[in-house]
Amino acid sequence: MAGGRQYFTGQDGDPAPLVARASRRVRFEEVDLLGMLWHGRYAGYFEDGRMAFGRRYGLSYQAFREHGTVAPVVRFHVDYQHPLRFDEECTILCSLHWCDAARLNFSYTLENQAGRTVAGGYTVQLFTDVEGTVLLLPPEWLGTFRQQWRQGLL
Amino acid sequence: MAGGRQYFTGQDGDPAPLVARASRRVRFEEVDLLGMLWHGRYAGYFEDGRMAFGRRYGLSYQAFREHGTVAPVVRFHVDYQHPLRFDEECTILCSLHWCDAARLNFSYTLENQAGRTVAGGYTVQLFTDVEGTVLLLPPEWLGTFRQQWRQGLL
Amino acid sequence: MAGGRQYFTGQDGDPAPLVARASRRVRFEEVDLLGMLWHGRYAGYFEDGRMAFGRRYGLSYQAFREHGTVAPVVRFHVDYQHPLRFDEECTILCSLHWCDAARLNFSYTLENQAGRTVAGGYTVQLFTDVEGTVLLLPPEWLGTFRQQWRQGLL
Amino acid sequence: MAGGRQYFTGQDGDPAPLVARASRRVRFEEVDLLGMLWHGRYAGYFEDGRMAFGRRYGLSYQAFREHGTVAPVVRFHVDYQHPLRFDEECTILCSLHWCDAARLNFSYTLENQAGRTVAGGYTVQLFTDVEGTVLLLPPEWLGTFRQQWRQGLL
Repeated sequence: MAGGRQYFTGQDGDPAPLVARASRRVRFEEVDLLGMLWHGRYAGYFEDGRMAFGRRYGLSYQAFREHGTVAPVVRFHVDYQHPLRFDEECTILCSLHWCDAARLNFSYTLENQAGRTVAGGYTVQLFTDVEGTVLLLPPEWLGTFRQQWRQGLL
Repeated sequence: MAGGRQYFTGQDGDPAPLVARASRRVRFEEVDLLGMLWHGRYAGYFEDGRMAFGRRYGLSYQAFREHGTVAPVVRFHVDYQHPLRFDEECTILCSLHWCDAARLNFSYTLENQAGRTVAGGYTVQLFTDVEGTVLLLPPEWLGTFRQQWRQGLL
Repeated sequence: MAGGRQYFTGQDGDPAPLVARASRRVRFEEVDLLGMLWHGRYAGYFEDGRMAFGRRYGLSYQAFREHGTVAPVVRFHVDYQHPLRFDEECTILCSLHWCDAARLNFSYTLENQAGRTVAGGYTVQLFTDVEGTVLLLPPEWLGTFRQQWRQGLL
Repeated sequence: MAGGRQYFTGQDGDPAPLVARASRRVRFEEVDLLGMLWHGRYAGYFEDGRMAFGRRYGLSYQAFREHGTVAPVVRFHVDYQHPLRFDEECTILCSLHWCDAARLNFSYTLENQAGRTVAGGYTVQLFTDVEGTVLLLPPEWLGTFRQQWRQGLL
């Protein structure tokens, strides 16, 4: 489950997903009338996971920009299984799934402090230049990154 | 497309979706470094549509609470097609799709001021009591609402 | 009170403040555990007032940028008098106070749907160029604006 | 400066302020078009400091609630001195200043990763019961807390 296989089914021979992890405590300003993390705020939690991933594997927003690339989210999905309450500590697992196309397929698993999975989801990102034109081929730096991933160097 | 048929495929004989509409201007605080509405803020736009729906059809959060019911979002999905920029006016179409089970299936279409569809998505809500226990049968008031819907009275 | 005289005391002969007005309904995502608008979200309500002011008097963010100017907020203050609750309609009065220096002094009054003042506050903005260097003299276009204000043409 | 003496001037013999510290990295979703932390989001940073204070000194929201008390913010003030940019690490110093009345006077100092003070501010909180009625006398548990503070036990 934590690998997000329910969201992205790969093919035999694909390298295993790369995973990073972040943690975050639910803030007072983030909970609703019922004391639960408002459903629309999970995007920020996913992004914390994606940022941790970027720092760990060199795929940060800043690294993209240095290459003149932006990677806008074109699809976003969350399945909520159990509420997160005010002041609860939450772990975000963020996994990048292998894909040959010019896109980034991330899945996310959120766990509460008892280790229970409370939500899952995924994002799909495409690549554009700074003017917003979609790149049909993966940028060159991504090719290098994928080569290292396939060779087990990451 | 605006009916969200791509997200919820009904059956022959189901009443047509009920639709409400809201509008909202993209705020300075909502756009990112690139001047585009940050992807995580669409949940708030969807909720504006759902609130407008609730006011029009009597399905508001407050009406739920009076019946001791809460309807948490258990699934949330967005497909982003075109950016929304700072100060752009946006129309949110919110459609409720017929469903016999104890759930609410809403789809959403966002249009920019030129009338172009810029995003679509859906939410699924279940019903719980105030303590959070999921109701397996639709609450009674929802039965009445659905009867009126089927009879074309809404 | 609505003129914000308690925040900016002018001098005899200063033109009266210019006022604009916006309205906004408190969203579900904006209230806290107690059902009240969270205190940190008033900045967004003030900004709605300032945006309405900008549209009415030609002092918008976009107009600033066309002149190569940015007007960052350097001071922000709120006095909370009465809570705003979920789904309450709120009116924001935004007043610009006369000032000869290179700054913008806005005060704000929030009224609930019963017409009661629920909060007041103010912001101070300086002018910088796009690189962030503070301008010690008011930009030329602001001089023109102030001339029209003094002549009662706004 | 870090003690916030510019905001709350005490009297001779008052115990020194109590201080707690939190840290936080500026998120992508928190910066504006110019890449700077939007001014309206500092309230969340202050609250992180206040939460850290509550955990350290036993003055948390939850502790208040157990005593049937709520401490709404009735005044909020920020002075912005230098921008915080995307991905910058920020330290929040939160100080409680001695006061005999039924109120909490906190001041805040934000420092960037270079140790430079980038913002300061303060909040004033009153005490109410759960229904929102203001308490004119400090709650009993606060008396105990203040006694320990004066005796240097905190």
